Amino acid sequence: MHSPQLDRYFADHREAHLAELKEFLAIPSISSLSEHKEDMKKGADWLAEALKKAGLENVKIDPTAGHPVVYADWLHAPGKPTILMYGHYDVQPVDPLHLWETAPFEATIRDEKIFARGASDDKGQVFMHVKAVEALLKETGELPVNIKFLIEGEEEIGSPNLDAYVEENKEALAADVIVISDTGMQGPGQPAVCYGLRGLAGIQIDVKGAKGDLHSGLYGGGVQNALHAIVELLASFRDKEGTIQVDGFYDNVRPLADEEREAYAALNFDEEALKNELEVPALFGEPGYTHLERVWARPTLEINGVFGGFSGEGIKTVLPNEAGAKITCRLVPDQDPDEIVAKLKAHVEANKPEGVEVTVSEFDKGKPFITPYDHPAIQTAGASYEAVYNVPTAYVRGGGSIPIVASFDEILGLPVVLMGFGLATENFHAPNEHFHLENFDKGLRVIGNYYEQMAQYTPEQLKK
Amino acid sequence: MHSPQLDRYFADHREAHLAELKEFLAIPSISSLSEHKEDMKKGADWLAEALKKAGLENVKIDPTAGHPVVYADWLHAPGKPTILMYGHYDVQPVDPLHLWETAPFEATIRDEKIFARGASDDKGQVFMHVKAVEALLKETGELPVNIKFLIEGEEEIGSPNLDAYVEENKEALAADVIVISDTGMQGPGQPAVCYGLRGLAGIQIDVKGAKGDLHSGLYGGGVQNALHAIVELLASFRDKEGTIQVDGFYDNVRPLADEEREAYAALNFDEEALKNELEVPALFGEPGYTHLERVWARPTLEINGVFGGFSGEGIKTVLPNEAGAKITCRLVPDQDPDEIVAKLKAHVEANKPEGVEVTVSEFDKGKPFITPYDHPAIQTAGASYEAVYNVPTAYVRGGGSIPIVASFDEILGLPVVLMGFGLATENFHAPNEHFHLENFDKGLRVIGNYYEQMAQYTPEQLKK
Repeated sequence: MHSPQLDRYFADHREAHLAELKEFLAIPSISSLSEHKEDMKKGADWLAEALKKAGLENVKIDPTAGHPVVYADWLHAPGKPTILMYGHYDVQPVDPLHLWETAPFEATIRDEKIFARGASDDKGQVFMHVKAVEALLKETGELPVNIKFLIEGEEEIGSPNLDAYVEENKEALAADVIVISDTGMQGPGQPAVCYGLRGLAGIQIDVKGAKGDLHSGLYGGGVQNALHAIVELLASFRDKEGTIQVDGFYDNVRPLADEEREAYAALNFDEEALKNELEVPALFGEPGYTHLERVWARPTLEINGVFGGFSGEGIKTVLPNEAGAKITCRLVPDQDPDEIVAKLKAHVEANKPEGVEVTVSEFDKGKPFITPYDHPAIQTAGASYEAVYNVPTAYVRGGGSIPIVASFDEILGLPVVLMGFGLATENFHAPNEHFHLENFDKGLRVIGNYYEQMAQYTPEQLKK
Repeated sequence: MHSPQLDRYFADHREAHLAELKEFLAIPSISSLSEHKEDMKKGADWLAEALKKAGLENVKIDPTAGHPVVYADWLHAPGKPTILMYGHYDVQPVDPLHLWETAPFEATIRDEKIFARGASDDKGQVFMHVKAVEALLKETGELPVNIKFLIEGEEEIGSPNLDAYVEENKEALAADVIVISDTGMQGPGQPAVCYGLRGLAGIQIDVKGAKGDLHSGLYGGGVQNALHAIVELLASFRDKEGTIQVDGFYDNVRPLADEEREAYAALNFDEEALKNELEVPALFGEPGYTHLERVWARPTLEINGVFGGFSGEGIKTVLPNEAGAKITCRLVPDQDPDEIVAKLKAHVEANKPEGVEVTVSEFDKGKPFITPYDHPAIQTAGASYEAVYNVPTAYVRGGGSIPIVASFDEILGLPVVLMGFGLATENFHAPNEHFHLENFDKGLRVIGNYYEQMAQYTPEQLKK
């Protein structure tokens, strides 16, 4: 293992690296604004050059229907695992510009933080991977594992062309593990490996009663009110404590392993502080689970909107003939979104109120993702963090979805390691985005260490 | 009793009466449009003249903060009941004008109907009372009862100044019965006396959870969703069949008398036809009651609006922090709106979901009204209709409210008789308003007969 060598390399080149990162950050590669189309090309070019300079091979800029993808690889470690590193070189818009203390595309260092759009999300983190590889190649002449870089330019606009790209280049992108550095740490000085995300399924329910709104005086008491019907139906989805009452909803939920519950408990999450921060009288949810277990490892059913009747000021004595609601479920392994939608529909059918017609339509779905907690690629990431940060790594899941993760999981079927170095306070997507240099310095060493440590496994040992 | 004499009088003066009515209808007394302010005065003047000509005394045009009230009386029947006759000389606007087949203020007779704005609502009906009194005075030199006319000019804009006027003139308006001819018959050839109206009470419920909307991925499953809270609360107000579950809600509901249920059943109301007309799969309501009983004599609780979260197109995975609902109740005798609001509030308090704050605010209230079915003033009205139409009178209630009725009931505390001659098909408030001359001719005789018949009672016998 070469860590001392790497540490010295990063220390020796710190100023040069930061100067290079500033160049990368100076390119306003805002994917959502068409006037920045040329800047997107500049961003891809700059990155391709940096990858070449690092010693990577087969560097290319692949066109897509939108902004290009940058690819590079180094594949001279036969018998060793292949890691597919994903990131993005596009950034969010900068409005409102006047709230920035220094110009968003003139990176500035103050208080040991580098301020610029993309510093944390995700140019800074992509850059660290490039430099970690460069360090290994320069110091040892080789890489301990095989590596493929896949850096896209459309993450901030929902990756509309990535699925097709991955599908078309499935063979070329074949790997044993996917590593993504586009998430956050658990807190300052507290590294985290995220090994699971929830999926999504949703429906809209529409209720129709009479042919039009009715006068509550003339008809009230004699005709079903669409709002009463939908309220009755909606109330049947959960019990008072939040447990979902849809038949079979929890059937395929993978129970939390004791190790996972212990890992979450070890985080000493401050539920009282969250309660105060959100200004709620109490936290709320499925009995028998802690807050972190509820939001990371348990599925949900949330009404996102209800509409019908009159919502203006004052009174209107209408008996509404139409009402609707939107419901989405966050899903956990091994729930299947299609199955869940079928169960939601069956629930509506079984609980349909009288006197109205009920229709259900579906929203886009997303599968939940998990790389098993005890998978070597996860545990090694944790060990690499610990080797540098000298504190136990948090093993966490995310309550939301990252669509590209679900896509990678689905198309390539590989374990995914979410190994982030950002902090929630770093204003990604807001003015004054920044990245803590402490995590830049330590992150380079963690990534280098991770690539080195992953060499201990055979590809076979990394099968999901 | 002088009915044959009256019949002859009306027959002899038919052309003259219709010519006079056309004059009244020619005045565009649209209360809602300021450019017709002078026409409102003309309408009041015309009516005052007609009342004088009929032989009424103390005719005066009383100013109000808005349009004037026309008052007249004849009080020379000592020991006999005093009837306060209420109506209005203002009319609805005429837009859209191009849909009128003949000009709205040039009354035209075709197919035995008189077409003009106000023909049915309410100038035509007020005019009939004036002419019935005139006939009695001309033919007999006296009236069988004491009569006071109170004809306002702001009914179509919600009678904003009538309560104050009645309150100020309480002594002068003292009477034993109030008669209003501003409602409809049950159908062609089918007279109806309306003896009850429902009241109103309402609340708005607001639910507040976290300090702002939350991301359903980050917090879903761990924080109460304001929409789930309100849906759960709203679903508790009624059972699946529509019976209201608010504690004590039905406590003061006056049970339907057997005679009332028989009277409603005798109407042979076609529930199947209503179902088809409203295009509902089934009518719906409190078990054990017919449709007419439900809408006339049973109280209701209707959700008029629910709001919260996202109601645009597609999906938004929000966990809404705020939600609200509007609820109104139609009340029946002897429910008290204040008591009902107190019970609704107690219900909210007792069923308040966890994890959120719930606030309740009140809407304007209105008392239910009833003149007992067997009250002489009601039964006599029915008998007068029967004497002319030769069919049994329908004894009905209204499911809605008529605010002036509630005001009269509250301020003067008198039995109210709603004795209408309009038909639901006569386009009041729409282009081509008209009034059937059959009901004009018969109505004059019914009203004359009613005034005569009411003379049989002492004021004491008419106490409510």
